[in-house]
Amino acid sequence: MHASQMAEEFPVVTVDSDALEAVQLLADRRLPGIVVTDETGCPCSILPASQVVRFLVPRYVQDDPSLAGVLSESMADRIADKLAGKTVKTLLPDDKTEVPTVQADDTIVEVAATMARLRCPLAAVVAGRDLVGVITASRLLELALAPR
Amino acid sequence: MHASQMAEEFPVVTVDSDALEAVQLLADRRLPGIVVTDETGCPCSILPASQVVRFLVPRYVQDDPSLAGVLSESMADRIADKLAGKTVKTLLPDDKTEVPTVQADDTIVEVAATMARLRCPLAAVVAGRDLVGVITASRLLELALAPR
Repeated sequence: MHASQMAEEFPVVTVDSDALEAVQLLADRRLPGIVVTDETGCPCSILPASQVVRFLVPRYVQDDPSLAGVLSESMADRIADKLAGKTVKTLLPDDKTEVPTVQADDTIVEVAATMARLRCPLAAVVAGRDLVGVITASRLLELALAPR
Repeated sequence: MHASQMAEEFPVVTVDSDALEAVQLLADRRLPGIVVTDETGCPCSILPASQVVRFLVPRYVQDDPSLAGVLSESMADRIADKLAGKTVKTLLPDDKTEVPTVQADDTIVEVAATMARLRCPLAAVVAGRDLVGVITASRLLELALAPR
């Protein structure tokens, strides 16, 4: 079985997508992260949900975490306000999470080796520069456990 | 809203759980990772699916990734064979992923600050030393986006 056969459809956004819609997608589908492609459709980064939650935290709490405890609920930054009119590009952390990329004809061992090395729960499957789909680590385990 | 109200039921294994059953849980529920507790029920680590996939990769390929491409499908290590009779403890990477822990009465800002700082897609909610539940980053985003 090749990577292209293991791949599943997975939501993808571009760097120019609406930030709020991307975050809604993470929330609605309960995703740990989402693949981001550049203008040409080539996967360039992952937007991890764990990084988006920092937009809930006011800047002065990010600078001094001990202040978090004294904030009341209503003082949490309204994420919808913060993201309005922004693009996905502005959400990406400065040290961008590189998206592990595997080729469409890679084997299960090659995909597993790439994922384990980069410690990433998903890999983008490409044919040339085009995104074919995404393989999650749990999908790989499911295939490996299935009777042959 | 406090962390204990945000928490969801989430599968948990102990360090002494059967390794194969834990991996089956990751695969069946398509989880990016699972919380591991010690003998006393206190969360001590996370078992990431991205680390379990390394058991698909023969040792000599881990040492020399260029060999992965020359392996045929049937030469992939059988994960079920490798895990038989082992415990979860043996699956945990040497540099264990510390599980971010929040207190049951922490606010959404405190949980978000902890998650963002540790770049982890989930946090364990504890009351004293007891695990109350788990909050994922995407669950936090869902709560933050909900109309108040």
